[in-house]
Amino acid sequence: MNKNFRNIFLITTFLFVLSRLYAQSKATWIWYPGDYEIWLANKMQNRRTDRGTFLPVFWKMDSHYVLVEFHKDAYFANADTVSIFVEGLYNIKIDGQAQTGLPDKIIVPKGNHRISLKVYNQANTPSVFVKGKYIVSDTSWLVTFEDKEWIDASGKASDKSGTAYKNAGAWNFYSPQSPPSFFHLPTIPVNAVYTMSQKNKTLLDFGKETFGFVKFHGLAGKGNIHIYYGESKEESLNTDSCETLDQLYIDNKIKNDSTMPLSKAFRYVNIVYDNAVHFDSVSMLYEYSPVEQKGNFHCSDSLINRIWDVSAYTLHLNTREFFIDGIKRDRWIWSGDAAQSYLMNYYLYFDEPTVKRTLYALRGKDPVTSHINTIMDYTFYWFLSIENYYLYSGDASFIQQIYPSMKTLMDFCLLRRDKDGFMEGKPGDWIFIDWAENLNKQGAASFEQILFCKSLETMADCAGLMKDTNAQKEYASIAKNLKEKIFKFFWNDSLHAFVHNEISGKAIRNVNRYANMFALLLNYLNPQQQQDVKQHVLLNDNIQKITTPYMRFYELEALCNMSEQKYVLHQMKNYWGGMLSRGATSFWEEYNPSEKGAAQFAMYGRPYGKSLCHAWGASPIYLLGKYFLGIKPTMPGYKEYIIEPNLGGLDWIEGDVPTPDGNIHEYCSTKKISVYSNRGNGILRFKSLYTPSCKQGVVRKITEKVYELNVKENIHYEVEYKSID
Amino acid sequence: MNKNFRNIFLITTFLFVLSRLYAQSKATWIWYPGDYEIWLANKMQNRRTDRGTFLPVFWKMDSHYVLVEFHKDAYFANADTVSIFVEGLYNIKIDGQAQTGLPDKIIVPKGNHRISLKVYNQANTPSVFVKGKYIVSDTSWLVTFEDKEWIDASGKASDKSGTAYKNAGAWNFYSPQSPPSFFHLPTIPVNAVYTMSQKNKTLLDFGKETFGFVKFHGLAGKGNIHIYYGESKEESLNTDSCETLDQLYIDNKIKNDSTMPLSKAFRYVNIVYDNAVHFDSVSMLYEYSPVEQKGNFHCSDSLINRIWDVSAYTLHLNTREFFIDGIKRDRWIWSGDAAQSYLMNYYLYFDEPTVKRTLYALRGKDPVTSHINTIMDYTFYWFLSIENYYLYSGDASFIQQIYPSMKTLMDFCLLRRDKDGFMEGKPGDWIFIDWAENLNKQGAASFEQILFCKSLETMADCAGLMKDTNAQKEYASIAKNLKEKIFKFFWNDSLHAFVHNEISGKAIRNVNRYANMFALLLNYLNPQQQQDVKQHVLLNDNIQKITTPYMRFYELEALCNMSEQKYVLHQMKNYWGGMLSRGATSFWEEYNPSEKGAAQFAMYGRPYGKSLCHAWGASPIYLLGKYFLGIKPTMPGYKEYIIEPNLGGLDWIEGDVPTPDGNIHEYCSTKKISVYSNRGNGILRFKSLYTPSCKQGVVRKITEKVYELNVKENIHYEVEYKSID
Repeated sequence: MNKNFRNIFLITTFLFVLSRLYAQSKATWIWYPGDYEIWLANKMQNRRTDRGTFLPVFWKMDSHYVLVEFHKDAYFANADTVSIFVEGLYNIKIDGQAQTGLPDKIIVPKGNHRISLKVYNQANTPSVFVKGKYIVSDTSWLVTFEDKEWIDASGKASDKSGTAYKNAGAWNFYSPQSPPSFFHLPTIPVNAVYTMSQKNKTLLDFGKETFGFVKFHGLAGKGNIHIYYGESKEESLNTDSCETLDQLYIDNKIKNDSTMPLSKAFRYVNIVYDNAVHFDSVSMLYEYSPVEQKGNFHCSDSLINRIWDVSAYTLHLNTREFFIDGIKRDRWIWSGDAAQSYLMNYYLYFDEPTVKRTLYALRGKDPVTSHINTIMDYTFYWFLSIENYYLYSGDASFIQQIYPSMKTLMDFCLLRRDKDGFMEGKPGDWIFIDWAENLNKQGAASFEQILFCKSLETMADCAGLMKDTNAQKEYASIAKNLKEKIFKFFWNDSLHAFVHNEISGKAIRNVNRYANMFALLLNYLNPQQQQDVKQHVLLNDNIQKITTPYMRFYELEALCNMSEQKYVLHQMKNYWGGMLSRGATSFWEEYNPSEKGAAQFAMYGRPYGKSLCHAWGASPIYLLGKYFLGIKPTMPGYKEYIIEPNLGGLDWIEGDVPTPDGNIHEYCSTKKISVYSNRGNGILRFKSLYTPSCKQGVVRKITEKVYELNVKENIHYEVEYKSID
Repeated sequence: MNKNFRNIFLITTFLFVLSRLYAQSKATWIWYPGDYEIWLANKMQNRRTDRGTFLPVFWKMDSHYVLVEFHKDAYFANADTVSIFVEGLYNIKIDGQAQTGLPDKIIVPKGNHRISLKVYNQANTPSVFVKGKYIVSDTSWLVTFEDKEWIDASGKASDKSGTAYKNAGAWNFYSPQSPPSFFHLPTIPVNAVYTMSQKNKTLLDFGKETFGFVKFHGLAGKGNIHIYYGESKEESLNTDSCETLDQLYIDNKIKNDSTMPLSKAFRYVNIVYDNAVHFDSVSMLYEYSPVEQKGNFHCSDSLINRIWDVSAYTLHLNTREFFIDGIKRDRWIWSGDAAQSYLMNYYLYFDEPTVKRTLYALRGKDPVTSHINTIMDYTFYWFLSIENYYLYSGDASFIQQIYPSMKTLMDFCLLRRDKDGFMEGKPGDWIFIDWAENLNKQGAASFEQILFCKSLETMADCAGLMKDTNAQKEYASIAKNLKEKIFKFFWNDSLHAFVHNEISGKAIRNVNRYANMFALLLNYLNPQQQQDVKQHVLLNDNIQKITTPYMRFYELEALCNMSEQKYVLHQMKNYWGGMLSRGATSFWEEYNPSEKGAAQFAMYGRPYGKSLCHAWGASPIYLLGKYFLGIKPTMPGYKEYIIEPNLGGLDWIEGDVPTPDGNIHEYCSTKKISVYSNRGNGILRFKSLYTPSCKQGVVRKITEKVYELNVKENIHYEVEYKSID
């Protein structure tokens, strides 16, 4: 080895070791993986009220393991005093030797030692925080709930005693004084932009959709205060029908401030109070998740810019302890809704913890007794979301942690197949697909089978990653057979499309967009079938229109995959622009342009049932980032990726897309593309009318008018070209 | 129908309906069945300390369902105000219509209505108490944790939505002001019988083994107080090695009383304190379960009477929130230990709730990840205990509630069989059998297979009871095949016994008592084999002796089954009488007559490791009731039963045995048998040298010297006979 090279090698090794030491030296609160997430989800989801009534979920809520053992083997270069913080009743052992009482410090002698804690906590998640010079609590610790499973195909570490261990779970609780159970989202005070007061009534307008705790200042007197929340002015004024309300009884001689105990979603707050009640003013504490916005997008079209901004705000409001559906009403974690939030998140925050928390919370614990959220499609979206999470993050350690739960959920599915291998709805199953009229839920829906097939492929991929070879083969084989049957039973050549469903083995001649757009999206179709679906389904106005942003997400994504960005842009401006023209300050759960006036707020048979701030309304973030900026990973964790701009008719677009290692910045006009990335191994692919030029790299011609350029890290590429779109 | 008969019929029907109404009219706190039991068991089992260190169980602890729905359909003859009490956050609905807020009263209109509550509680078991004129909370309410299981072979009620319901669980919480989470065992103050004080030291002797909270009176000053507990005087004085201790630091100017926070087991309390500490006196709060002692036993032998009394006291000390193993050390619920407590309980308290609570707590929740208490035999005892519970109580509704959990536990077992269908220990499994030297735990132990076989037969019986016909056939068939293989692999004609185990298909020539006595007990042997086992194993001093009362229980029971009461009485006087002669005031975990002095307190390598008050030490209660008084059910719930006295050499015996409907009283001397029962359908069977006489009934001759008499309720039978024993 050349001496200089050797020195570089040694320095690099030293830095690497240093970074590992540093990484290990940050003590954090740890717990059984998934347990804090389940506990926190229970807490959050049980905050829903419906006109003052507690309204919990209608599926099984699980609980954390109440008794958990934590341990770590470490080398102590010298005797050291180690600090111990625990949430729960506990004991602590050094090399299996119990220390008396509940010590907050232990002295560990020099040498190799195993430190272990066993913690009981029924009300909160058993958690520990350990900090010494040679040992800190982090995700390298092993944990068990005394799981004695002896079959260990799942890659779990298992000792001779037959005990199965996992790596501990953690988040960002780095302070021993702030244990996990203390966590709450931060708030900031915000004033209304407009206040209208009359006798015994005050109406506040916060200028846009918002979320938080209403706060009274200088509250005194005696009597009742009724607080009616509205996402629209109409809702807040309709005291009989607004979806959420609060009531407060006071009897204060001295002026006090008073904050409502539960956060609510609103733009308008209508306060009606008794004569003897007085308050100086009312503001709110805006509650938010402190996720960092890393992605952004601008372009030459101000409506699209506004759509992107409102989308980003919509997603931010719905990004809380978890990715929730909507801030006014359910405030629950729905797997199908979350599946879209994850994808948008990869283009806005790239916040991995919120994705993982949401996936853990949705999955809950074994035994599986129903589909996730009771919805068959939502079980499948959960699998697909894991595939996507791995593609974007490259986080194999999460797959390792969740893989056993993936298997047991898939076991549940496999046991519910009919004789053709399809999954039909059983009593208690909800076949959702979409909010749409006349959607037949009988028999086997082609849409469900396609998602099921992709779920099986996901299982095969994850089994491969876990080196669970037999399972990998088995899943792949079931998926292959299922795909063949899907085409055999549902594809109709004369209709150029998949039919919607089959009942008792007989296909029904009924075409809609759902199965067809997913087959396109998941690349299940040959080129001819792709064109068939595009022409005979997606661009065919005789096929029932989609009225939720939820399914428009996939419809427009499928069209982007067919290079229909121009059409998609037009749709986006009409549909999301349509909501803006109705005064939307966040995007809605459903938008049907044909509904006007009061009807546009109604849903579920209730005049203000519709959520006006729904995560699935925010898909333009994803579509513009992935299919206009055109940035997406081609290997897990952006180890390789592609930048494939498509102006879709715009003069220029510009933006940032986050990756696990910093952003990719792009500008693209009809004449110039510039790219700067913190991460190498990218490929810029574009079409040009004439031979493009780039001083910073070599442009390759791939096919007629298609060019590529390798993108290395930290180089500012400027390409001169002529757009073909 | 004859008019008089019709009137009787109507009156009877009226009384029946009245009794049902009355039964329904007692409101009680209700919960998801098994959930409060699991919660309470967690609480109790996490009170164990080992010399001041928290010492929890080493198996999975489960949790209650945190979100539970309760409902009941009822007819309201008039509008009524119904009171609502809830442990947890809740909503309440009338006919699906939610009431605002958390009401403590609802007004229900006249007519048929469904009242439902949904309750969330992470820290405690979700529980409700509902009381109105036409509706009260009781076990007729249906509950669900939103279990959407669609397969419903288990007999669970299931509505069209696919939701599975169970009947609510309850106990004896009849006061709305005393919800389940408030429950604690009662206490009474008790003074030491002897107190010895010297400088800085006080030694208390409570005269016998006891359990409770040490209480200081008039405590003042400043400094430390060390409290060392001892089941023996030696233990309490050995401050370095006593198993339990407490420490108290005080800094009081004014005299106070102070009660230790955790209850402990002791006879002696050794208190060592700093100079500046003062107290007036020390007493204790004796903590006990208020179960009613219904059974009793007396006889002509005062040592046997003393053995019975100390047995009853031993069982009472170990009958707490649950049947526990021993009061000093584990204080946990062990299935094998509890299996014996249940049986003793049938002859002392006949307290069904403690049996059910213990069975629920032991079983925990799905998924099953290890054997109960991690011990294979303890899983099997759980099944056998259910068979016994049903035989004694006739409580089919409990079988209905627990049957789904029985199935999943048996599924776990069936998946762990080897190629011969035997269950061997897998990593993480504990093959316990007994505390005995040189017990080979390798391969398949015949003892385990015999218990496994009986467990399968129990499953078949319960499946039959649940009308789960396919499962019944399947379990019966597996049991039959297993039994054949047990004889084929383990029975050795030349040894006249079962060998202990086989390793890799090869039987080891090693005979001990365990498998053989169970085969006898469970009636698996033909008459020749019975005699073989009796002579070549049970009465053979060359076969390793049993040193625990635990296995002596079954050994002596097997001998009683072979009519060896005389021998058993002799053994009982030697073995239990031996403990008494060593000063025992309760019976021990282990007693080896050859150990003397300090050695008799040692176990597990610790000088005072042995428990001197262990539930399994109390078996004379059971043996004397079942095999000397000879009273036992022959149909579930004593619908039919037999009274088969056996004096075992005693001049006379007398006692009461409880049944679900009152006691059976019996007196038997060599010349007279008298019987009085609250319950009909009994048969008195006895041997007599000459033809017996009975004025109150007709004595039948069955075989040579064996006679029978039908026992009807509430008749005092007096039989003149001549004992043959």
